[in-house]
Amino acid sequence: MSKLEDIVSLCKRRGFIFPGSDVYGGMAGTWDFGPLGVSLKKNIMDAWWNYFVEKRDDMYGVDAAIIMNPRTWVASGHTATFADPLVECKECKSRFRADKIADGISESVTTEEFLATHTKCPVCGKENWGPIRKFNMMFSTHVGAVLPEDTQDNPELAAKNIAYLRPETAQGIFTNYKNVIDTIYPSLPFGLAQQGKAFRNEISPRDFILRDRECSQMEIEYFVHPDSWEGEFEKLRALQHDFLENVVKLPAENIHELEVPAEDRAHYSKRTIDFMFDYPNGEEELMGLAYRTDFDLSNIQRESGKNMEYRDKNTGETFIPHVIEPSIGVERLFLAILSTAYTEEENEGKTRILLKLPENLAPYHFCVSPLLKNKPELVEKARAVYDMLREKYGNVTWDDSGNIGKRYMKQDEIGTPKCVVIDFDTLEDDTVTVRDRDTTKQTRVKISEL
Amino acid sequence: MSKLEDIVSLCKRRGFIFPGSDVYGGMAGTWDFGPLGVSLKKNIMDAWWNYFVEKRDDMYGVDAAIIMNPRTWVASGHTATFADPLVECKECKSRFRADKIADGISESVTTEEFLATHTKCPVCGKENWGPIRKFNMMFSTHVGAVLPEDTQDNPELAAKNIAYLRPETAQGIFTNYKNVIDTIYPSLPFGLAQQGKAFRNEISPRDFILRDRECSQMEIEYFVHPDSWEGEFEKLRALQHDFLENVVKLPAENIHELEVPAEDRAHYSKRTIDFMFDYPNGEEELMGLAYRTDFDLSNIQRESGKNMEYRDKNTGETFIPHVIEPSIGVERLFLAILSTAYTEEENEGKTRILLKLPENLAPYHFCVSPLLKNKPELVEKARAVYDMLREKYGNVTWDDSGNIGKRYMKQDEIGTPKCVVIDFDTLEDDTVTVRDRDTTKQTRVKISEL
Repeated sequence: MSKLEDIVSLCKRRGFIFPGSDVYGGMAGTWDFGPLGVSLKKNIMDAWWNYFVEKRDDMYGVDAAIIMNPRTWVASGHTATFADPLVECKECKSRFRADKIADGISESVTTEEFLATHTKCPVCGKENWGPIRKFNMMFSTHVGAVLPEDTQDNPELAAKNIAYLRPETAQGIFTNYKNVIDTIYPSLPFGLAQQGKAFRNEISPRDFILRDRECSQMEIEYFVHPDSWEGEFEKLRALQHDFLENVVKLPAENIHELEVPAEDRAHYSKRTIDFMFDYPNGEEELMGLAYRTDFDLSNIQRESGKNMEYRDKNTGETFIPHVIEPSIGVERLFLAILSTAYTEEENEGKTRILLKLPENLAPYHFCVSPLLKNKPELVEKARAVYDMLREKYGNVTWDDSGNIGKRYMKQDEIGTPKCVVIDFDTLEDDTVTVRDRDTTKQTRVKISEL
Repeated sequence: MSKLEDIVSLCKRRGFIFPGSDVYGGMAGTWDFGPLGVSLKKNIMDAWWNYFVEKRDDMYGVDAAIIMNPRTWVASGHTATFADPLVECKECKSRFRADKIADGISESVTTEEFLATHTKCPVCGKENWGPIRKFNMMFSTHVGAVLPEDTQDNPELAAKNIAYLRPETAQGIFTNYKNVIDTIYPSLPFGLAQQGKAFRNEISPRDFILRDRECSQMEIEYFVHPDSWEGEFEKLRALQHDFLENVVKLPAENIHELEVPAEDRAHYSKRTIDFMFDYPNGEEELMGLAYRTDFDLSNIQRESGKNMEYRDKNTGETFIPHVIEPSIGVERLFLAILSTAYTEEENEGKTRILLKLPENLAPYHFCVSPLLKNKPELVEKARAVYDMLREKYGNVTWDDSGNIGKRYMKQDEIGTPKCVVIDFDTLEDDTVTVRDRDTTKQTRVKISEL
């Protein structure tokens, strides 16, 4: 098995991540977080929120609805251009994203360019392609009291009620910029941060949680004076590194900045750095840092007719702020953290699997257990230690299943940094065995010093 | 203005809640949380998660995808029955939920029953109705690489790709029951908890955030032995009261249990208690506690063909667990908390508006400010106090705008329990003025004793 397959297997085996709708044979491109995965995900999202919002004077949160007024996507350009090149094999009817099955072509590939690559169908092996068609990745739905039979012969009515699941959280921030300015009166530069779901109807979801149809994003739109974008860009760039390397503890050597060349940048961006990460299957985008100019606010001003200008309280100058956007996908970060933590150690012919998760992210800080579960005096003492630690540290787990060896194996696999075992000596001298996940070393510690 | 209108106004004025897509004239039934609202909402959700999951040995979290395999909704009965009675005025073409515009009829009203009520159209005042039609409230979408032109003349293809936004989080728990059982091996009784979005295409969204099209739910499915449901039901009932009254501090006298009579219960439920709350506009459901029997797991077993039985480790008995479900909407709880906190006080002919939010929920614990903002020595000292308090307590806000009176007014309206003001005496004796939100009393306190 590849390392990614090992991680997928561990995730399912230990209750981190299950395939979405697994009991019904799945739902392509969706994943469900199990009990351990929820804890890790929440710890990651809370660490981000704490670092970028709660600890800062210049950042504020927003939380917008997923279903937005469809004009949002006209203004942002998604209605016209958020599309992938879809190609169909005329032999077996399989459909693909053209730029993913042929080398050296871009998302804007034409039919002629694609045919010139002489790509064979990955399913049937033949080379008989239909034309490239643009497939918009936004999920659409209908809002309001309109029945299917009403729209059957009335496409206009159907079109009138179409809305979309947001394909990014960013526009939920931009559309609230004006209300925030008018209520909180923040001074430039300031950022609005949001965590929430985004949806993309990927033609071929793949690579576990890296390219799914439903993901959680953590985005900041940082509003700056147009003249100061370069300095603010550098500050935000340094903040991202600090968060990735010192808060969620990704190895700096596995993060690579990719300065996106002008011809590959989104049309609105004047500078973009992709933060690439060495995932088990190779380098992939972890997050992006983009200078979006006044593209979004100007579009909203034009589409809505409302004034998006900011007025400087000191100088009186009015202008549309420019924006720098750090954007990260929770699942991408989750997998980067998991694949950093995933470790296999060979020891005396046996393989030990462990997750070296940072203490601030691990689902449980401690596992407490009695050496034997059929000795009431040990169980009672262990319960007291468990209650004390949980009061003090929060997430602590209890395990009295199987033997000690199996418990250690399980706690290693779910990334619990310390196992605390209560034995007969504990009853005498109030010391416990503390076993370290990473070194497997066991030390005797006074309960009061835990 | 009614009290609800006052609250809506405060929410918009102070950045708690804005109408969704406000800049584009809105999107009916959606609401966006602003900076203050995000903090309050997060504090509420974290308090619930801490109380019901982190602090308990018998509860585990899950976090399922919003787009689920459509068989989920066949098994749960939503495809067939999650529908409201829609009626159209033939004169002005307005559409309504029949049971909301006529008295004394239920959701299962027939055309004849509705016509017999002689209801006039709330819009045009005429009485000329079309037939009652069933309007399914699930939002549908299409998943996969299918273009609109593919399905135009191919309704079968269109139907094949339909999926729904989940109308409740509960099924995201039930569909993960089997995977949790097989990975975490919990012993009965145990609960699976989930927080997340749910979507309902309400015919007439109304009452601010009480009946919106997109809401956040916090649900627990608590799995029990069929013989012990009554005792477990009582335990969960007591837990709900404890959470509502002692954690988020709703007044007990405003919570009323409604024992739902058999004829009004969902068909799968053998007992349901609705927890009603005295909202500004009257009594409304705050949360529900339902005994769902083995309805859901048995349906999933039938639809999926997979075994949903639980095997008792001690007795060897195998059976499908029964389920008790406490279910609460975040927005409903948010509004209950806000309307409890919202207070107007008359004092010397002036009205003081304040939010008496509990300290554990308030967006900010402290507001720190220098008496005068143009005295660098005061600002510097205030900054030091601000940094110290933020390090110690987390959410602290800084305010040096306007005069002290205006700052107090603002902090009262956003519910900050204490305002700390640094003045010239502070520079002499290291004491500060602490002003209490609820009493408006000011006391001198040593910085070290804050």
